[in-house]
Amino acid sequence: MNDPLLSRIATVLVQTSHPGNIGSAARALKTMGLSQLRLVAPYEFPACAANQLASGALDVLENALVVPTLADALHDASVVFGSSDRRRELRMLEIGPREFASLALDAATTGPVAVVYGTERTGLTNDELGLCQYLVTIPANPEYSSLNLASAVQVLSYELRSESLRRAGLEAPARVDAHVPAASAELEGFFGHLQEVLELVGFFGQRPTQKIMRRLRRLYQRAMPDAREVQILRGILTETQVAVRGRNVRVKAVDEASH
Amino acid sequence: MNDPLLSRIATVLVQTSHPGNIGSAARALKTMGLSQLRLVAPYEFPACAANQLASGALDVLENALVVPTLADALHDASVVFGSSDRRRELRMLEIGPREFASLALDAATTGPVAVVYGTERTGLTNDELGLCQYLVTIPANPEYSSLNLASAVQVLSYELRSESLRRAGLEAPARVDAHVPAASAELEGFFGHLQEVLELVGFFGQRPTQKIMRRLRRLYQRAMPDAREVQILRGILTETQVAVRGRNVRVKAVDEASH
Repeated sequence: MNDPLLSRIATVLVQTSHPGNIGSAARALKTMGLSQLRLVAPYEFPACAANQLASGALDVLENALVVPTLADALHDASVVFGSSDRRRELRMLEIGPREFASLALDAATTGPVAVVYGTERTGLTNDELGLCQYLVTIPANPEYSSLNLASAVQVLSYELRSESLRRAGLEAPARVDAHVPAASAELEGFFGHLQEVLELVGFFGQRPTQKIMRRLRRLYQRAMPDAREVQILRGILTETQVAVRGRNVRVKAVDEASH
Repeated sequence: MNDPLLSRIATVLVQTSHPGNIGSAARALKTMGLSQLRLVAPYEFPACAANQLASGALDVLENALVVPTLADALHDASVVFGSSDRRRELRMLEIGPREFASLALDAATTGPVAVVYGTERTGLTNDELGLCQYLVTIPANPEYSSLNLASAVQVLSYELRSESLRRAGLEAPARVDAHVPAASAELEGFFGHLQEVLELVGFFGQRPTQKIMRRLRRLYQRAMPDAREVQILRGILTETQVAVRGRNVRVKAVDEASH
Protein backbone atom coordinates (compact mmCIF):
# COMPACT_ATOMS: atom_id res chain seq x y z
CA MET A 1 0.00 0.00 0.00
CA ASN A 2 2.98 2.34 0.49
CA ASP A 3 4.71 3.69 -2.58
CA PRO A 4 8.16 1.97 -2.79
CA LEU A 5 9.59 5.28 -3.99
CA LEU A 6 8.98 6.70 -0.50
CA SER A 7 11.40 4.15 0.93
CA ARG A 8 14.15 5.53 -1.30
CA ILE A 9 13.91 8.93 0.33
CA ALA A 10 16.14 9.17 3.41
CA THR A 11 15.53 11.70 6.16
CA VAL A 12 18.78 13.01 7.63
CA LEU A 13 18.79 14.77 11.02
CA VAL A 14 21.99 16.69 11.77
CA GLN A 15 23.20 16.94 15.39
CA THR A 16 19.79 16.70 16.97
CA SER A 17 19.96 17.95 20.58
CA HIS A 18 16.82 16.35 22.02
CA PRO A 19 16.41 12.59 21.55
CA GLY A 20 12.64 13.07 21.92
CA ASN A 21 12.67 14.93 18.62
CA ILE A 22 14.34 11.95 16.94
CA GLY A 23 11.51 9.73 18.21
CA SER A 24 8.81 12.17 17.10
CA ALA A 25 10.44 12.45 13.68
CA ALA A 26 10.47 8.63 13.36
CA ARG A 27 6.75 8.54 14.13
CA ALA A 28 6.07 11.33 11.63
CA LEU A 29 7.98 9.41 8.95
CA LYS A 30 6.20 6.13 9.54
CA THR A 31 2.71 7.66 9.49
CA MET A 32 3.50 8.93 6.01
CA GLY A 33 4.97 5.63 4.79
CA LEU A 34 8.65 6.68 4.90
CA SER A 35 11.17 4.49 6.68
CA GLN A 36 14.78 5.61 6.18
CA LEU A 37 16.24 7.68 8.99
CA ARG A 38 19.89 8.78 9.21
CA LEU A 39 21.33 10.55 12.23
CA VAL A 40 24.48 12.66 11.99
CA ALA A 41 26.26 12.87 15.36
CA PRO A 42 23.10 12.94 17.50
CA TYR A 43 23.60 14.37 21.00
CA GLU A 44 22.04 11.29 22.60
CA PHE A 45 21.02 8.13 20.79
CA PRO A 46 19.73 5.51 21.43
CA ALA A 47 17.67 7.09 24.20
CA CYS A 48 14.56 6.38 26.26
CA ALA A 49 12.92 9.65 25.23
CA ALA A 50 13.38 8.76 21.57
CA ASN A 51 11.74 5.36 22.03
CA GLN A 52 8.84 6.82 24.01
CA LEU A 53 7.99 9.45 21.43
CA ALA A 54 8.47 7.10 18.49
CA SER A 55 5.43 5.21 19.81
CA GLY A 56 4.63 2.59 17.15
CA ALA A 57 7.59 3.58 14.97
CA LEU A 58 10.34 1.86 16.97
CA ASP A 59 11.36 -0.06 13.84
CA VAL A 60 12.33 3.21 12.16
CA LEU A 61 14.61 4.04 15.12
CA GLU A 62 16.08 0.54 15.18
CA ASN A 63 16.96 0.73 11.51
CA ALA A 64 18.34 4.27 11.75
CA LEU A 65 21.87 4.79 10.44
CA VAL A 66 24.12 6.76 12.80
CA VAL A 67 27.10 8.47 11.13
CA PRO A 68 29.71 11.04 12.19
CA THR A 69 29.39 13.56 9.35
CA LEU A 70 26.76 14.86 6.96
CA ALA A 71 28.90 13.77 4.00
CA ASP A 72 28.72 10.19 5.34
CA ALA A 73 24.94 10.40 5.54
CA LEU A 74 24.77 11.60 1.95
CA HIS A 75 27.27 9.14 0.44
CA ASP A 76 24.73 7.43 -1.85
CA ALA A 77 22.32 10.32 -2.47
CA SER A 78 21.93 11.55 -6.02
CA VAL A 79 19.76 14.50 -5.05
CA VAL A 80 19.88 16.30 -1.69
CA PHE A 81 17.26 18.70 -0.33
CA GLY A 82 18.02 20.93 2.65
CA SER A 83 15.12 22.04 4.85
CA SER A 84 15.63 25.52 6.21
CA ASP A 85 14.31 29.03 6.63
CA ARG A 86 14.86 31.33 3.71
CA ARG A 87 18.49 32.32 3.18
CA ARG A 88 18.61 35.22 0.83
CA GLU A 89 22.37 35.41 0.96
CA LEU A 90 22.71 31.93 -0.55
CA ARG A 91 22.23 31.59 -4.26
CA MET A 92 20.39 28.29 -4.05
CA LEU A 93 17.39 26.91 -5.84
CA GLU A 94 14.68 27.67 -3.30
CA ILE A 95 11.46 25.72 -3.44
CA GLY A 96 8.25 25.18 -1.46
CA PRO A 97 7.04 21.85 0.01
CA ARG A 98 4.88 20.90 -2.98
CA GLU A 99 7.56 21.49 -5.56
CA PHE A 100 9.92 19.60 -3.23
CA ALA A 101 7.61 16.58 -3.17
CA SER A 102 7.35 16.52 -6.92
CA LEU A 103 11.10 16.87 -7.52
CA ALA A 104 11.97 14.34 -4.80
CA LEU A 105 9.66 11.68 -6.22
CA ASP A 106 11.02 12.33 -9.71
CA ALA A 107 14.57 11.93 -8.40
CA ALA A 108 13.67 8.78 -6.44
CA THR A 109 12.81 7.00 -9.66
CA THR A 110 16.48 7.10 -10.66
CA GLY A 111 18.41 6.98 -7.36
CA PRO A 112 18.51 7.56 -3.61
CA VAL A 113 17.30 10.93 -2.34
CA ALA A 114 18.09 12.67 0.95
CA VAL A 115 16.24 15.37 2.87
CA VAL A 116 18.39 17.11 5.48
CA TYR A 117 17.24 18.89 8.66
CA GLY A 118 19.59 20.93 10.86
CA THR A 119 19.76 21.33 14.63
CA GLU A 120 16.75 22.50 16.64
CA ARG A 121 18.33 25.85 17.52
CA THR A 122 20.16 26.96 14.43
CA GLY A 123 19.04 24.78 11.53
CA LEU A 124 21.51 23.96 8.78
CA THR A 125 24.76 25.88 8.51
CA ASN A 126 25.77 27.41 5.19
CA ASP A 127 28.44 24.72 4.82
CA GLU A 128 25.83 22.00 5.31
CA LEU A 129 23.53 23.69 2.80
CA GLY A 130 26.47 23.67 0.44
CA LEU A 131 26.01 19.89 0.23
CA CYS A 132 22.38 20.32 -0.86
CA GLN A 133 21.08 21.04 -4.35
CA TYR A 134 17.82 22.58 -3.19
CA LEU A 135 16.69 24.66 -0.26
CA VAL A 136 13.16 23.72 0.84
CA THR A 137 11.29 26.27 2.93
CA ILE A 138 7.92 25.68 4.57
CA PRO A 139 5.76 28.82 4.29
CA ALA A 140 5.40 30.18 7.83
CA ASN A 141 4.27 33.13 9.89
CA PRO A 142 6.97 35.79 9.37
CA GLU A 143 6.57 36.80 13.02
CA TYR A 144 7.12 33.26 14.30
CA SER A 145 8.47 30.84 11.77
CA SER A 146 10.10 28.36 14.13
CA LEU A 147 8.54 24.97 13.37
CA ASN A 148 9.43 22.16 15.73
CA LEU A 149 11.88 19.75 14.07
CA ALA A 150 9.40 16.83 14.02
CA SER A 151 6.69 19.17 12.69
CA ALA A 152 8.88 20.12 9.74
CA VAL A 153 9.55 16.42 9.11
CA GLN A 154 5.79 15.78 9.32
CA VAL A 155 4.88 18.51 6.82
CA LEU A 156 7.47 17.54 4.20
CA SER A 157 6.72 13.82 4.60
CA TYR A 158 3.01 14.56 4.31
CA GLU A 159 3.65 16.37 1.03
CA LEU A 160 5.67 13.40 -0.23
CA ARG A 161 2.81 11.02 0.57
CA SER A 162 0.19 13.37 -0.92
CA GLU A 163 2.18 13.71 -4.13
CA SER A 164 2.69 9.95 -4.29
CA LEU A 165 -1.08 9.39 -3.91
CA ARG A 166 -1.81 12.02 -6.57
CA ARG A 167 0.51 10.25 -9.00
CA ALA A 168 -1.17 6.94 -8.27
CA GLY A 169 -4.53 8.59 -8.97
CA LEU A 170 -5.51 7.94 -5.38
CA GLU A 171 -5.91 11.48 -4.22
CA ALA A 172 -7.34 10.68 -0.84
CA PRO A 173 -10.00 10.55 0.27
CA ALA A 174 -12.77 10.81 -2.26
CA ARG A 175 -15.99 12.42 -1.15
CA VAL A 176 -18.07 10.25 -3.41
CA ASP A 177 -16.85 7.21 -1.51
CA ALA A 178 -18.25 8.38 1.80
CA HIS A 179 -21.44 10.02 0.63
CA VAL A 180 -23.36 9.34 -2.59
CA PRO A 181 -26.13 11.91 -3.00
CA ALA A 182 -29.44 10.43 -4.15
CA ALA A 183 -30.35 10.56 -7.84
CA SER A 184 -32.23 13.63 -8.95
CA ALA A 185 -35.41 11.62 -9.67
CA GLU A 186 -35.48 10.31 -6.11
CA LEU A 187 -35.18 13.83 -4.78
CA GLU A 188 -37.94 15.00 -7.14
CA GLY A 189 -40.16 12.18 -5.91
CA PHE A 190 -39.57 13.43 -2.40
CA PHE A 191 -40.39 17.05 -3.32
CA GLY A 192 -43.69 15.98 -4.90
CA HIS A 193 -44.52 13.89 -1.85
CA LEU A 194 -43.58 16.75 0.47
CA GLN A 195 -45.86 19.24 -1.28
CA GLU A 196 -48.71 16.72 -1.15
CA VAL A 197 -48.30 16.29 2.60
CA LEU A 198 -47.95 20.02 3.21
CA GLU A 199 -51.25 20.50 1.37
CA LEU A 200 -52.79 17.65 3.33
CA VAL A 201 -51.83 19.17 6.70
CA GLY A 202 -53.09 22.54 5.48
CA PHE A 203 -49.68 24.16 5.79
CA PHE A 204 -50.00 26.47 2.81
CA GLY A 205 -53.26 28.21 3.67
CA GLN A 206 -52.62 31.86 2.72
CA ARG A 207 -48.89 31.15 2.20
CA PRO A 208 -47.41 31.33 -1.33
CA THR A 209 -47.03 27.66 -2.26
CA GLN A 210 -44.52 28.15 -5.09
CA LYS A 211 -42.22 30.38 -3.10
CA ILE A 212 -42.18 28.10 -0.07
CA MET A 213 -41.53 25.04 -2.20
CA ARG A 214 -38.61 26.78 -3.88
CA ARG A 215 -37.03 27.52 -0.51
CA LEU A 216 -37.57 23.96 0.69
CA ARG A 217 -36.04 22.60 -2.50
CA ARG A 218 -32.96 24.73 -2.01
CA LEU A 219 -32.62 23.60 1.58
CA TYR A 220 -32.79 19.89 0.76
CA GLN A 221 -30.63 20.20 -2.32
CA ARG A 222 -27.92 21.84 -0.23
CA ALA A 223 -28.06 18.93 2.22
CA MET A 224 -27.47 16.47 -0.63
CA PRO A 225 -29.33 13.56 1.03
CA ASP A 226 -28.30 10.08 -0.05
CA ALA A 227 -30.77 7.37 -1.11
CA ARG A 228 -31.24 6.03 2.42
CA GLU A 229 -31.91 9.51 3.77
CA VAL A 230 -34.50 10.21 1.08
CA GLN A 231 -36.13 6.93 2.05
CA ILE A 232 -36.26 8.09 5.68
CA LEU A 233 -37.72 11.48 4.72
CA ARG A 234 -40.39 9.83 2.58
CA GLY A 235 -41.14 7.42 5.41
CA ILE A 236 -41.86 10.42 7.62
CA LEU A 237 -44.19 11.85 4.97
CA THR A 238 -46.05 8.57 4.56
CA GLU A 239 -46.51 8.20 8.31
CA THR A 240 -47.75 11.78 8.46
CA GLN A 241 -50.29 11.03 5.73
CA VAL A 242 -51.52 7.94 7.57
CA ALA A 243 -51.75 9.84 10.82
CA VAL A 244 -53.60 12.83 9.33
CA ARG A 245 -55.96 10.72 7.27
CA GLY A 246 -56.66 8.49 10.27
CA ARG A 247 -57.48 11.57 12.31
CA ASN A 248 -59.65 12.96 9.53
CA VAL A 249 -61.41 9.62 9.31
CA ARG A 250 -61.87 9.75 13.07
CA VAL A 251 -63.07 13.38 12.95
CA LYS A 252 -65.43 12.48 10.14
CA ALA A 253 -66.69 9.46 12.08
CA VAL A 254 -67.26 11.66 15.15
CA ASP A 255 -69.05 14.22 12.94
CA GLU A 256 -71.25 11.52 11.50
CA ALA A 257 -71.97 10.10 14.92
CA SER A 258 -73.03 13.52 16.23
CA HIS A 259 -75.54 14.03 13.47
CA MET B 1 1.41 39.62 6.77
CA ASN B 2 -0.95 36.96 8.13
CA ASP B 3 -4.30 36.48 6.42
CA PRO B 4 -7.01 37.80 8.79
CA LEU B 5 -9.22 34.90 7.68
CA LEU B 6 -6.84 32.52 9.48
CA SER B 7 -7.69 34.20 12.78
CA ARG B 8 -11.36 33.33 12.27
CA ILE B 9 -10.57 29.62 12.27
CA ALA B 10 -10.58 28.18 15.79
CA THR B 11 -8.76 24.97 16.68
CA VAL B 12 -10.67 22.93 19.26
CA LEU B 13 -8.86 20.20 21.24
CA VAL B 14 -11.20 17.81 23.05
CA GLN B 15 -10.11 16.31 26.39
CA THR B 16 -6.41 16.37 25.65
CA SER B 17 -4.57 14.05 28.06
CA HIS B 18 -1.04 15.41 27.81
CA PRO B 19 -0.58 19.14 28.42
CA GLY B 20 2.63 18.99 26.33
CA ASN B 21 0.49 18.29 23.29
CA ILE B 22 -1.53 21.45 23.96
CA GLY B 23 1.72 23.43 23.99
CA SER B 24 3.00 21.78 20.79
CA ALA B 25 -0.36 22.43 19.10
CA ALA B 26 -0.17 26.11 20.10
CA ARG B 27 3.30 26.34 18.54
CA ALA B 28 2.10 24.61 15.38
CA LEU B 29 -0.81 27.07 15.09
CA LYS B 30 1.32 30.16 15.56
CA THR B 31 3.94 29.11 13.00
CA MET B 32 1.13 28.94 10.45
CA GLY B 33 -0.43 32.26 11.45
CA LEU B 34 -3.41 30.86 13.34
CA SER B 35 -4.19 32.07 16.84
CA GLN B 36 -7.51 30.79 18.20
CA LEU B 37 -7.26 27.78 20.50
CA ARG B 38 -10.19 26.29 22.43
CA LEU B 39 -9.77 23.51 24.98
CA VAL B 40 -12.66 21.26 25.94
CA ALA B 41 -12.16 19.82 29.45
CA PRO B 42 -8.38 19.40 29.17
CA TYR B 43 -6.90 16.89 31.62
CA GLU B 44 -4.37 19.44 32.90
CA PHE B 45 -4.26 23.11 31.95
CA PRO B 46 -2.57 25.49 32.53
CA ALA B 47 0.53 23.35 32.89
CA CYS B 48 4.31 23.71 32.84
CA ALA B 49 4.69 21.13 30.06
CA ALA B 50 2.28 23.08 27.88
CA ASN B 51 4.22 26.32 28.36
CA GLN B 52 7.55 24.62 27.69
CA LEU B 53 6.46 23.06 24.42
CA ALA B 54 4.60 26.16 23.26
CA SER B 55 8.02 27.83 23.07
CA GLY B 56 7.40 31.24 21.45
CA ALA B 57 3.64 30.68 21.23
CA LEU B 58 2.77 31.37 24.87
CA ASP B 59 0.33 34.06 23.76
CA VAL B 60 -1.78 31.41 22.02
CA LEU B 61 -1.99 29.45 25.30
CA GLU B 62 -2.75 32.57 27.32
CA ASN B 63 -5.64 33.46 25.02
CA ALA B 64 -6.97 29.91 24.87
CA LEU B 65 -10.63 29.45 25.78
CA VAL B 66 -11.28 26.60 28.22
CA VAL B 67 -14.84 25.21 28.16
CA PRO B 68 -16.60 22.18 29.67
CA THR B 69 -18.26 20.74 26.54
CA LEU B 70 -17.66 20.56 22.80
CA ALA B 71 -21.00 22.29 22.20
CA ASP B 72 -19.70 25.27 24.23
CA ALA B 73 -16.56 25.41 22.10
CA LEU B 74 -18.65 25.45 18.94
CA HIS B 75 -21.28 27.98 20.08
CA ASP B 76 -20.40 30.60 17.43
CA ALA B 77 -19.14 28.32 14.63
CA SER B 78 -21.00 28.35 11.35
CA VAL B 79 -19.00 25.49 9.87
CA VAL B 80 -17.33 22.70 11.88
CA PHE B 81 -14.67 20.30 10.61
CA GLY B 82 -13.78 17.17 12.57
CA SER B 83 -10.28 15.72 12.17
CA SER B 84 -10.28 11.95 12.36
CA ASP B 85 -9.34 8.65 10.77
CA ARG B 86 -11.75 7.37 8.16
CA ARG B 87 -15.08 6.24 9.56
CA ARG B 88 -16.89 4.29 6.95
CA GLU B 89 -19.86 3.67 9.19
CA LEU B 90 -20.65 7.37 9.36
CA ARG B 91 -22.40 8.96 6.43
CA MET B 92 -20.42 12.18 6.58
CA LEU B 93 -18.87 14.37 3.94
CA GLU B 94 -15.29 13.10 4.02
CA ILE B 95 -12.56 15.32 2.65
CA GLY B 96 -8.76 15.52 2.44
CA PRO B 97 -6.58 18.31 3.90
CA ARG B 98 -6.50 20.38 0.72
CA GLU B 99 -10.22 20.39 0.16
CA PHE B 100 -10.56 21.17 3.87
CA ALA B 101 -8.34 24.23 3.55
CA SER B 102 -10.31 25.50 0.60
CA LEU B 103 -13.73 24.97 2.23
CA ALA B 104 -12.57 26.39 5.58
CA LEU B 105 -11.24 29.60 4.02
CA ASP B 106 -14.45 29.96 2.00
CA ALA B 107 -16.49 29.53 5.16
CA ALA B 108 -14.29 31.95 7.12
CA THR B 109 -15.30 34.77 4.78
CA THR B 110 -18.84 34.59 6.14
CA GLY B 111 -18.47 33.43 9.76
CA PRO B 112 -16.43 31.69 12.44
CA VAL B 113 -15.07 28.25 11.60
CA ALA B 114 -13.97 25.46 13.96
CA VAL B 115 -11.63 22.50 13.46
CA VAL B 116 -12.03 19.81 16.12
CA TYR B 117 -9.44 17.24 17.26
CA GLY B 118 -10.26 14.36 19.62
CA THR B 119 -8.24 12.78 22.41
CA GLU B 120 -4.77 11.35 21.79
CA ARG B 121 -5.90 7.77 22.29
CA THR B 122 -9.28 7.49 20.68
CA GLY B 123 -9.85 10.59 18.57
CA LEU B 124 -13.36 11.99 18.21
CA THR B 125 -16.34 9.91 19.29
CA ASN B 126 -19.24 9.45 16.91
CA ASP B 127 -21.33 11.80 19.05
CA GLU B 128 -18.64 14.46 18.77
CA LEU B 129 -18.42 13.93 15.01
CA GLY B 130 -22.19 14.39 14.95
CA LEU B 131 -21.54 18.07 15.75
CA CYS B 132 -19.29 18.39 12.67
CA GLN B 133 -20.36 18.98 9.07
CA TYR B 134 -17.22 17.50 7.55
CA LEU B 135 -14.81 14.72 8.42
CA VAL B 136 -11.22 15.64 7.49
CA THR B 137 -8.77 12.77 7.14
CA ILE B 138 -5.03 13.15 6.59
CA PRO B 139 -3.80 10.51 4.13
CA ALA B 140 -1.58 8.14 6.13
CA ASN B 141 0.22 4.81 6.09
CA PRO B 142 -2.54 2.20 6.41
CA GLU B 143 -0.19 0.13 8.59
CA TYR B 144 0.47 2.99 11.01
CA SER B 145 -1.84 5.94 10.66
CA SER B 146 -1.51 7.35 14.16
CA LEU B 147 -0.33 10.94 13.77
CA ASN B 148 0.63 12.73 16.95
CA LEU B 149 -2.06 15.29 17.91
CA ALA B 150 0.22 18.30 17.35
CA SER B 151 1.38 16.81 14.03
CA ALA B 152 -2.20 16.63 12.80
CA VAL B 153 -2.73 20.25 13.90
CA GLN B 154 0.50 21.17 12.07
CA VAL B 155 -0.52 19.50 8.81
CA LEU B 156 -4.03 20.98 8.65
CA SER B 157 -2.80 24.43 9.71
CA TYR B 158 -0.06 24.22 7.10
CA GLU B 159 -2.67 23.51 4.44
CA LEU B 160 -4.71 26.49 5.61
CA ARG B 161 -1.69 28.77 5.32
CA SER B 162 -0.70 27.32 1.93
CA GLU B 163 -4.20 27.83 0.57
CA SER B 164 -4.31 31.35 1.96
CA LEU B 165 -1.00 32.17 0.23
CA ARG B 166 -2.23 30.64 -3.03
CA ARG B 167 -5.32 32.83 -2.93
CA ALA B 168 -3.21 35.89 -2.30
CA GLY B 169 -1.07 34.94 -5.31
CA LEU B 170 1.88 34.47 -2.97
CA GLU B 171 2.48 30.79 -3.47
CA ALA B 172 5.65 30.63 -1.48
CA PRO B 173 8.46 30.70 -2.13
CA ALA B 174 9.24 31.66 -5.70
CA ARG B 175 12.32 30.16 -7.26
CA VAL B 176 12.96 33.17 -9.42
CA ASP B 177 13.27 35.29 -6.31
CA ALA B 178 16.18 33.25 -4.98
CA HIS B 179 17.97 32.56 -8.22
CA VAL B 180 17.84 34.60 -11.43
CA PRO B 181 19.66 32.75 -14.22
CA ALA B 182 21.93 34.95 -16.33
CA ALA B 183 20.64 36.29 -19.64
CA SER B 184 21.27 34.10 -22.64
CA ALA B 185 23.71 36.61 -24.17
CA GLU B 186 25.88 36.53 -21.06
CA LEU B 187 25.99 32.75 -21.20
CA GLU B 188 26.85 32.88 -24.91
CA GLY B 189 29.67 35.30 -24.16
CA PHE B 190 30.96 32.79 -21.65
CA PHE B 191 30.76 29.87 -24.13
CA GLY B 192 32.75 31.87 -26.71
CA HIS B 193 35.34 32.79 -24.11
CA LEU B 194 35.50 29.18 -22.89
CA GLN B 195 36.16 27.81 -26.36
CA GLU B 196 38.87 30.43 -26.90
CA VAL B 197 40.64 29.41 -23.69
CA LEU B 198 40.30 25.70 -24.42
CA GLU B 199 41.97 26.33 -27.76
CA LEU B 200 44.64 28.44 -26.07
CA VAL B 201 45.52 25.70 -23.58
CA GLY B 202 45.55 23.17 -26.40
CA PHE B 203 42.70 21.16 -24.89
CA PHE B 204 41.08 20.15 -28.18
CA GLY B 205 44.08 18.63 -29.94
CA GLN B 206 42.64 15.51 -31.61
CA ARG B 207 39.33 15.91 -29.75
CA PRO B 208 36.15 16.83 -31.68
CA THR B 209 35.72 20.52 -30.83
CA GLN B 210 32.02 20.78 -31.78
CA LYS B 211 30.99 17.72 -29.85
CA ILE B 212 32.86 18.72 -26.72
CA MET B 213 31.49 22.24 -26.85
CA ARG B 214 27.96 20.89 -27.17
CA ARG B 215 28.42 18.79 -24.01
CA LEU B 216 29.90 21.71 -22.11
CA ARG B 217 27.04 23.93 -23.20
CA ARG B 218 24.52 21.41 -21.91
CA LEU B 219 26.33 21.09 -18.62
CA TYR B 220 26.41 24.84 -17.95
CA GLN B 221 22.91 25.39 -19.20
CA ARG B 222 21.65 22.80 -16.77
CA ALA B 223 23.42 24.61 -13.94
CA MET B 224 21.61 27.85 -14.85
CA PRO B 225 24.37 30.17 -13.54
CA ASP B 226 23.29 33.65 -12.52
CA ALA B 227 25.02 36.84 -13.66
CA ARG B 228 27.49 36.86 -10.77
CA GLU B 229 28.42 33.24 -11.39
CA VAL B 230 29.02 33.91 -15.10
CA GLN B 231 31.24 36.79 -14.03
CA ILE B 232 33.24 34.41 -11.81
CA LEU B 233 33.57 31.80 -14.57
CA ARG B 234 34.79 34.44 -17.01
CA GLY B 235 37.21 35.73 -14.41
CA ILE B 236 38.69 32.24 -14.24
CA LEU B 237 39.02 32.16 -18.04
CA THR B 238 40.68 35.56 -18.13
CA GLU B 239 43.15 34.60 -15.43
CA THR B 240 43.89 31.39 -17.31
CA GLN B 241 44.59 33.39 -20.46
CA VAL B 242 46.92 35.72 -18.59
CA ALA B 243 48.73 32.80 -17.00
CA VAL B 244 49.10 30.82 -20.22
CA ARG B 245 50.16 33.82 -22.29
CA GLY B 246 52.61 34.87 -19.58
CA ARG B 247 54.08 31.37 -19.67
CA ASN B 248 54.16 31.41 -23.46
CA VAL B 249 55.88 34.79 -23.31
CA ARG B 250 58.32 33.33 -20.81
CA VAL B 251 58.83 30.18 -22.91
CA LYS B 252 59.37 32.37 -25.98
CA ALA B 253 61.85 34.55 -24.07
CA VAL B 254 63.75 31.46 -22.92
CA ASP B 255 63.70 30.12 -26.50
CA GLU B 256 65.07 33.39 -27.78
CA ALA B 257 67.71 33.54 -25.05
CA SER B 258 68.87 30.02 -25.85
CA HIS B 259 69.32 30.84 -29.49
